[in-house]
Amino acid sequence: MIRFGRHPERSVADLGREAVLGLIQGMNLDRERIQAAYGSSVFGGPLVSQRILKEIGMTGIPCYNMENACASGATAFHMAWLAVGMGLYDVVLVVGVEQLSTFGGGALPIPADDIEGHHGIVMPGVYAMRAQRYMKEYGAKPEDFALVTVKNRYHGSMNPYAQFQEPVTLEEVMASRMVAEPFNLLQCCAGNGDGAAAVLVCASEIAKELSDKAITVKASHITSGYFKGGYRDLTWPEITYRAVHKAYEMAGVGPEDIDLVELHDAFTIAEILYYETMGFCGRGEGYKFLKDGKSYLGGQVAVNVSGGLMSRGHPLGSTGVAQIAEMFWQLTGQAGKRQVQNARIGMTHVTGGGISGVDNGACGVHIFAATQ
Amino acid sequence: MIRFGRHPERSVADLGREAVLGLIQGMNLDRERIQAAYGSSVFGGPLVSQRILKEIGMTGIPCYNMENACASGATAFHMAWLAVGMGLYDVVLVVGVEQLSTFGGGALPIPADDIEGHHGIVMPGVYAMRAQRYMKEYGAKPEDFALVTVKNRYHGSMNPYAQFQEPVTLEEVMASRMVAEPFNLLQCCAGNGDGAAAVLVCASEIAKELSDKAITVKASHITSGYFKGGYRDLTWPEITYRAVHKAYEMAGVGPEDIDLVELHDAFTIAEILYYETMGFCGRGEGYKFLKDGKSYLGGQVAVNVSGGLMSRGHPLGSTGVAQIAEMFWQLTGQAGKRQVQNARIGMTHVTGGGISGVDNGACGVHIFAATQ
Repeated sequence: MIRFGRHPERSVADLGREAVLGLIQGMNLDRERIQAAYGSSVFGGPLVSQRILKEIGMTGIPCYNMENACASGATAFHMAWLAVGMGLYDVVLVVGVEQLSTFGGGALPIPADDIEGHHGIVMPGVYAMRAQRYMKEYGAKPEDFALVTVKNRYHGSMNPYAQFQEPVTLEEVMASRMVAEPFNLLQCCAGNGDGAAAVLVCASEIAKELSDKAITVKASHITSGYFKGGYRDLTWPEITYRAVHKAYEMAGVGPEDIDLVELHDAFTIAEILYYETMGFCGRGEGYKFLKDGKSYLGGQVAVNVSGGLMSRGHPLGSTGVAQIAEMFWQLTGQAGKRQVQNARIGMTHVTGGGISGVDNGACGVHIFAATQ
Repeated sequence: MIRFGRHPERSVADLGREAVLGLIQGMNLDRERIQAAYGSSVFGGPLVSQRILKEIGMTGIPCYNMENACASGATAFHMAWLAVGMGLYDVVLVVGVEQLSTFGGGALPIPADDIEGHHGIVMPGVYAMRAQRYMKEYGAKPEDFALVTVKNRYHGSMNPYAQFQEPVTLEEVMASRMVAEPFNLLQCCAGNGDGAAAVLVCASEIAKELSDKAITVKASHITSGYFKGGYRDLTWPEITYRAVHKAYEMAGVGPEDIDLVELHDAFTIAEILYYETMGFCGRGEGYKFLKDGKSYLGGQVAVNVSGGLMSRGHPLGSTGVAQIAEMFWQLTGQAGKRQVQNARIGMTHVTGGGISGVDNGACGVHIFAATQ
């Protein structure tokens, strides 16, 4: 992957090119082995994967471009996994890319028919409501949420690919300007960065031939939201529960088996709710789980050891693929200072795309295991 | 499918809703049988299939959204076919949708990094160059191209779903304003319409249970362009040749077996070049093939009997799915006045997405057979 950040002078194709070339050169791979490409982007425009591959002369192969809001990268990976799984291809490329720095106002556009969005139920508002309800139900304070940023910026300070590599203190988070109570600016992930990430998916017997480092896909699941009207429990992200528990079932594992998770910390409250939804602790206990250090590198489960969306950044279509790149590095012992010791099983999780107020539109979960 | 046309007052979700509901109600299908959705759109924004399905309360199923320029609909169908083929799902929905009437200037946007596009090598220019070269090589006249519009508008006059249902004369085509020599306006498909189309893909044993009318997928192939620099033969659409001949091979058929084709007549010259590329006639003979009536309803092969892009319209992401809907109607004998008699085998073809001047970015071809 490339270092996430702001590169308004570059093109989407150029960002993707760097990630794909990095992958090919890093593996010393004969590019002729790549039989198809799965691109992911939300706002990258038509034919993202073709435009990227044209830059490096890899043309004429089947290219498929996937859009699934924040879950786009996971969806592209899922499609690649399916195609290899059914034997259609042996070796395929997944590349996620997004360039948000060139958006005019710095905020994502609200579709014309999104009534809730036009009335203020945009992402910061939705997650602020979740946080307000959580505080009322469980007695958490705004500072408890802010600790998510402190942790993830600390983790990200060890990740050379992160957009934000400076750690921050609790005081700094709380002193940043208010966006939607109880969220200060530093409790919201940045939606203004650019990024690209690429991974290779291949049949297991081919993996041995192409590289001495590989990880195994144990579960892959994509789902969509229910978009129910009426009362919803704001402290229970149902779509994440459904996707994660389906993935546990596919992989034959439970929360106690997971050594590290890359999860969708778009806002601080989100990470805390996902601890609970994923079963790492009980309901209402997420903020204590964090405060007790259990989700830090070296804790019970290392959560967002890459820095997560909060520190690595969140160029939409590239996030899901970057999470999988992190799993590759961690489960093959190549993660440097942020290495999770004895990491054997890891999970990635992306969810997003608001429609109809508080429900997410798409969620993608993968579970990986160390191969050796 | 819905009648293609201009509906700027409606939303993308609403257009898709009508197509999906029409499918479900027309089949008297229990919607609970649908296990996943494959959406296709180029400019429809995030989560098109989720936004459509939310309108009719079909939520919580895996949704995948595909973008592949003009080949988006074919790509979504291909992905659905793969998933059913590998047994992941039994019954899945494909829905293509596009709303172009709400675009400001009426023309498709040129990406910032498309240097050729910014210098005038946009679609009408590219195809006009093809036509100029073809005239020089083979002695065709502008009127020979205009006959494609006359044929397709005649066919479309029998299609209640077509955007343009009035036949036009050769004189009317030639009298319409010049866009890019030798193309008058009526030799260019309309890129300003809206549309939606939906089809169901299921395992063959399930098809018998759900409906007494079904067709069989004999081949499905997606590929991308080579984007070569330097000299290219403008009268030979290489990407179409490659995709179509791969599909013939998969299906075990040749051009002599094809009863009808829905092909990508974005500009009149395109249809003539595809007769030759698909092997219905020799090189340089396409315009005579048309003039002799061989591509009319009742001719050697019925080409674009739906009206094609020229008459049915071309709302990008919905075109590939609408072509497949036409195959369903034709191969089950439900096409009314435009019915191809004794139709047994049909082919659909979409290609497009300009990058690097004259090469297309993506091409999708399917071959279908009557099941009875």
